[in-house]
Amino acid sequence: MPRNSLGRGGFLRAGTGLVGGALLAGSAPANALAEDAAPLAIPESNKVLGAGVNDTPYGMPSKYERDVVRRTVPFLTAEDKSSVSFTPLQDLDGIITPNGLCFVRDHGGSPMDIDPLTHRLVIHGLVDTPMEYTMNDLIRFPTESHVYFMECGANGGMDYKGAQMQGVQFTHGMIHCCEWTGVKLSVLMAEAGVKPSAKWMLAEGADAAAMTRSVPIEKALDDALIAWSQNGERLRPENGYPVRLVLPGWQANLNVKWLRRLKFGTDPWETREETSKYTELLPDGKSRQFDWVMGTKSVITAPCPEKPMVGKGFREVTGLAWSGYGSVTRVDVSFDGGVNWQRATLQEPVLTKALTRFRIPWQWNGETALLQSRAVDDKGHVQPTHEQLLAARGGNAIYNKNSIQTWRVNPNGTVDSVQVS
Amino acid sequence: MPRNSLGRGGFLRAGTGLVGGALLAGSAPANALAEDAAPLAIPESNKVLGAGVNDTPYGMPSKYERDVVRRTVPFLTAEDKSSVSFTPLQDLDGIITPNGLCFVRDHGGSPMDIDPLTHRLVIHGLVDTPMEYTMNDLIRFPTESHVYFMECGANGGMDYKGAQMQGVQFTHGMIHCCEWTGVKLSVLMAEAGVKPSAKWMLAEGADAAAMTRSVPIEKALDDALIAWSQNGERLRPENGYPVRLVLPGWQANLNVKWLRRLKFGTDPWETREETSKYTELLPDGKSRQFDWVMGTKSVITAPCPEKPMVGKGFREVTGLAWSGYGSVTRVDVSFDGGVNWQRATLQEPVLTKALTRFRIPWQWNGETALLQSRAVDDKGHVQPTHEQLLAARGGNAIYNKNSIQTWRVNPNGTVDSVQVS
Repeated sequence: MPRNSLGRGGFLRAGTGLVGGALLAGSAPANALAEDAAPLAIPESNKVLGAGVNDTPYGMPSKYERDVVRRTVPFLTAEDKSSVSFTPLQDLDGIITPNGLCFVRDHGGSPMDIDPLTHRLVIHGLVDTPMEYTMNDLIRFPTESHVYFMECGANGGMDYKGAQMQGVQFTHGMIHCCEWTGVKLSVLMAEAGVKPSAKWMLAEGADAAAMTRSVPIEKALDDALIAWSQNGERLRPENGYPVRLVLPGWQANLNVKWLRRLKFGTDPWETREETSKYTELLPDGKSRQFDWVMGTKSVITAPCPEKPMVGKGFREVTGLAWSGYGSVTRVDVSFDGGVNWQRATLQEPVLTKALTRFRIPWQWNGETALLQSRAVDDKGHVQPTHEQLLAARGGNAIYNKNSIQTWRVNPNGTVDSVQVS
Repeated sequence: MPRNSLGRGGFLRAGTGLVGGALLAGSAPANALAEDAAPLAIPESNKVLGAGVNDTPYGMPSKYERDVVRRTVPFLTAEDKSSVSFTPLQDLDGIITPNGLCFVRDHGGSPMDIDPLTHRLVIHGLVDTPMEYTMNDLIRFPTESHVYFMECGANGGMDYKGAQMQGVQFTHGMIHCCEWTGVKLSVLMAEAGVKPSAKWMLAEGADAAAMTRSVPIEKALDDALIAWSQNGERLRPENGYPVRLVLPGWQANLNVKWLRRLKFGTDPWETREETSKYTELLPDGKSRQFDWVMGTKSVITAPCPEKPMVGKGFREVTGLAWSGYGSVTRVDVSFDGGVNWQRATLQEPVLTKALTRFRIPWQWNGETALLQSRAVDDKGHVQPTHEQLLAARGGNAIYNKNSIQTWRVNPNGTVDSVQVS
């Protein structure tokens, strides 16, 4: 027979350890069935008819997955209509975030009742022909589909002054990655005839915050999408239904949800969300504005505080890496707090401005370990240590925290978020 | 300013037509705002606070998408516990099928109550060490994630004797495409030490049908996955929770759901599902068995019977292509029933044994048109006409129907499924 490349027991001999708890080469595999094992028991599910196909016109997760949900941090905001719910990264595999679990950040709540038949997208300002589109107009245009991550500028911000949040859902969960479908914004700009004098674009949402951000014309003409679909189906209400702006790799708040208006002009509009918020107070008292691109970043999602180690021996260590500048080219993992590094395997396909799944085998000896991951992108950016980030930004910073995360694995298997540099 | 490559109105001048109904070059764009247009109206959603983030721990589609659901064909089976619900391909974009809309085909209903803590996967038969794994054991193994399509062998079977089903949901909806995560089966086979004498593997499900299929050892050692995750989250109950077999490109029924047992032996087991079903009655009275690989195939998903044309002029034509043999390399589209063909654009990334989205611009003149798509894969397979398929299989066939689909667009914009060859 064609042999598996590892051969019998090769998984052990390959030095990555036997799964199931056996620690010594040659010892009986922990998962081995005893010689006198009873006949394979017939589970109840083999004895009774299951649910009919008419019972699930739209499927939902198993009741045993009821704890896999978006979560909020009560002390973070005064109330939940201007707050954020975090993606449970500790429970997810691969790179696609299921629509029901994509983090949500609103400034005036999520409009749940926008009728796609009455919704309009207007393009005006410095254009030859102001335009107004219905959703049915938009879907007739040439479309594109791309897998892009979307990250809130404040992701990780609560840990800027030290490791406060215990759990990857709260340290890194303001991010999701979906397959977006829509029309290139540049196509609509050509239809309206944006004037040469236009240098900036205002995007406005149909929510209670009338979320507005100024976008430089270069990004609008580059890879910006006017998207109505997310992982195959139409956008979820809390993610911008029926249509949103997608600016690949840029701070999520610029990816205006419930998009109703695009106005072209000569200067940024200095809206509330780009003056009172999303600016960085620097050590010299000045403020850094328009820090749009999300930095090169990574995090180990297993093990993590929510997913402790279960016994010594082999455990695959896995996580996610991304860069708003382009593609992840390399992820290194350290088990000793950054002294020694090993190169992790990247799961293909590695896509630009998308999450990239990395994996590396680990044989845990049961002693305290400091796990870190460090991403590098195709523009040469290297994920910084927290020390390096603070040196560059100062202690008042909140946004675009992309420094290396450290998980301390304790002898009892629990995992804590700590700061080692 | 950097100009969009098409320039002002270039979308029209590029010959692909102006969107929104304007038919003549130079005429006012249908979407143009009138000179005396009233100020942009403020929608109600701008005036009232939306839902708070605590209102949606697990998100659901907008109420306006309530008709985007899996559907069944009442006359297809005696009752719905041994039936199929179809994916609404007419409503989907991109290549990822959202988990809630993945087609379901059961033989004894979907077990909705399998506890992942008590579920076991046993590997026995011709192995050195029979093994029993818990779900927690399995997730410690090295994992992989891959986007693969999964198609029921009976997809399209109702149209074998002519175009009966009016709608792409029913002609092609027994298919979905997800990002699967799990451990390579070959790794588990190495752990158990599958004996050289083993040539076949029996996979058994924990459902009321005790779904069992025989799989040749070569496929088990090639790209087979033991998967517990689908598009990032754990499998849905109706798709095999907590663990299923994934055999990329092979008939879906071999991708045994609710997997509880893998037994290795010297010959196929000739189970009910590979003798009474999933065999083809040939013209000479003989039966073709073990027809595993899903053929090279494609279908236009817009326009389609459920998505008729709305007026003359420009409309992007889009659809899906796939092959169980490997990657789609080319899709050609005909607007005149196969007389003339034009090459469609394939959306990157094009992945092996995954759905591939194709698109082509169309300027509809308002007359009757016969739309077809024809896929070619990297092994040189060309999607056959219905005539060619019948010549090869005879009139008794039901399974693996991969012939070219024809949509007739009528002058009033409605679309019918017809057979032209």
